[in-house]
Amino acid sequence: RSMATAARKSLTIGLIPADGIGKEVIPAARTAIEALGSDIPNPKFIDLIAGFETFTRTGVALPEETVEVLKNDCDCALFGSVSSPSRKVVGYSSPIVALRKILDLYANIRPVVSVCILSLVHVDMIVVRENTECLYVKQEQQTFGEHGKEARATRLITERASTRIGKMAFELALARPRKHLTVIHKSNVLSVTDGLFRESVRAVQTKDSRFEAVTVAEQLVDSAVYRLFREPQIYDVMVAPNLYGDILSDAAAALVGSLGVVPSVNAGDTFVMGEPVHGSAPDIFGQGIANPVASIRSAALMLRHLGYTEAAHRIDNAVDSVLREGQLLTPDLGGTAKTQEVTDAIVKRI
Amino acid sequence: RSMATAARKSLTIGLIPADGIGKEVIPAARTAIEALGSDIPNPKFIDLIAGFETFTRTGVALPEETVEVLKNDCDCALFGSVSSPSRKVVGYSSPIVALRKILDLYANIRPVVSVCILSLVHVDMIVVRENTECLYVKQEQQTFGEHGKEARATRLITERASTRIGKMAFELALARPRKHLTVIHKSNVLSVTDGLFRESVRAVQTKDSRFEAVTVAEQLVDSAVYRLFREPQIYDVMVAPNLYGDILSDAAAALVGSLGVVPSVNAGDTFVMGEPVHGSAPDIFGQGIANPVASIRSAALMLRHLGYTEAAHRIDNAVDSVLREGQLLTPDLGGTAKTQEVTDAIVKRI
Ligand SMILES: CC(C)[C@H](C(=O)O)[C@@H](O)C(=O)O
Ligand SMILES: CC(C)[C@H](C(=O)O)[C@@H](O)C(=O)O
Repeated sequence: RSMATAARKSLTIGLIPADGIGKEVIPAARTAIEALGSDIPNPKFIDLIAGFETFTRTGVALPEETVEVLKNDCDCALFGSVSSPSRKVVGYSSPIVALRKILDLYANIRPVVSVCILSLVHVDMIVVRENTECLYVKQEQQTFGEHGKEARATRLITERASTRIGKMAFELALARPRKHLTVIHKSNVLSVTDGLFRESVRAVQTKDSRFEAVTVAEQLVDSAVYRLFREPQIYDVMVAPNLYGDILSDAAAALVGSLGVVPSVNAGDTFVMGEPVHGSAPDIFGQGIANPVASIRSAALMLRHLGYTEAAHRIDNAVDSVLREGQLLTPDLGGTAKTQEVTDAIVKRI
Repeated sequence: RSMATAARKSLTIGLIPADGIGKEVIPAARTAIEALGSDIPNPKFIDLIAGFETFTRTGVALPEETVEVLKNDCDCALFGSVSSPSRKVVGYSSPIVALRKILDLYANIRPVVSVCILSLVHVDMIVVRENTECLYVKQEQQTFGEHGKEARATRLITERASTRIGKMAFELALARPRKHLTVIHKSNVLSVTDGLFRESVRAVQTKDSRFEAVTVAEQLVDSAVYRLFREPQIYDVMVAPNLYGDILSDAAAALVGSLGVVPSVNAGDTFVMGEPVHGSAPDIFGQGIANPVASIRSAALMLRHLGYTEAAHRIDNAVDSVLREGQLLTPDLGGTAKTQEVTDAIVKRI
């Protein structure tokens, strides 16, 4: 799936490094895009702020200006990572969850592929995660009951959101050699909400004859995580409600050696935002050793989604060749290389 | 934690094999208990029905009689596994989820320990799962909105349930050499519900000075699954809300080679029910090759919880020695042995 690019004379990319190692890896992704030269028409970058540090400084985690500039001036964006406060902080709310909703980036697409030098098992899958609802609607209340505090959260699953994420997943499966889709749910417990998710996704196939070519399986989320570890090769494309997708993509990342190599895009019908799957990693921030691969791959994924197939390909090839050579690896992959060295090596190959 | 046993003159155990391989492994667990001889005073077994097959036959998944007999006549019970219908079936609802609530078995205790012959990594942890609330309250509604169907589920987290599961987890951690507890949540998104879970569990420590000896860590559920695969040795006892606990215990089981060796108890203040963590495994049901270890270990765990420490010990030792010898293993562990052969070998060593 890609958005039309024909008419585009320039490409404006919002950069939101946010917190922690986001600040080290988003610049690396920018460098990779710049290295593409004329493959991208007139790339422009706009630096934007958000995150916990922004919150501590300004009282707002996602400034309105950031949202306005993304909406009005940017064709796409790259987001780094946010730190979560270790205690509840009044007024703070995750800017990435908010951005996904505000920009209606309803699909979180996370390809997880083995890093050849590291992998015991061959993994090549895409986790397609619904990105706007489930428990992420953040409708929560606390009351006082007979036995103390009681808190309730609403889990929302709609036919509309399940159908559109289902379509995205079928399109992605159709474009792959194996054409296999696994629908993840827990409808043995959540028969209404996950029942609706499952039915809506499956209905997508019956409404478009192109999708007949896709084989469909279903799995309960607990057993999906179990099987993911035991026989990851059974998966091709997985589609899941928001929270299960969050957990499954981290689980899949563990199989390929490091979260530091797993990219994602948050995609809507009119906007796309690349985002490494890893977090802000406060333990290694500031040492210049964060793996830039996830962010650089996220840039490629974003460009592919925008229709710049050749440009995306060049970035991915460069990354793959650096990983295959295995000489320049950051510590998460067992090496001793710095963010800058890995970035330089990739840029040289672009 | 164990219930007082001093006054008990006989022990009445309800047996609910339910569906699929539950019918093959619960008899194995019974045989193991019988082999204990006078270590258990006058064991009596009462066969009870529940499950999807029961539903298909009688229209009810959990007959009232089963509940009444458990409440009035049994000291404890062993539950097998239930099959989930592959499509929504009107009127069907999981009997195990219902039993946990009706009998107020608020703690699901799942020790996951490496099987020596199979393990690449050394795993020795207990997943302590809250067993009565979270999304398992099954309060769901479907409505019709502007864009089609909308379904909502309520996720309930109470101070009371979080506190009592927290206490259970601290007690278990305190009794182990490492005395380490990891609190699992996702309060970066669910600040109110998971915030309450986290606070309630942590408050347990400040209210009982014995628990000062326990070191406490926290982890977001997605990163907990990631780290579980990468560095399982960091975990000792994990405490989690219901759904995260469900997923985490399956994930942990994958690390030790098979769900077929992972036992659990559903424990309340006045009743305890052993239950293998595996499902009904329709793919292997009827072949006599289901692994009886999870059920036999669940029986031991149940007995230990009731205060029959020596009896539990004898069962566990017998299981461990059969697994260590590695001659008689069911197919899930890479062997070719039958359920009956493994059971016989264990019983001989009891
Ligand atoms: C930071 C957090 C809110 C986020 C999520 O849960 O979606 C992260 O875990 C992710 O996977 O992008
Ligand atoms: C069968 C199902 C309802 C159950 C659960 O989700 O609790 C099972 O997965 C378990 O782990 O005991």
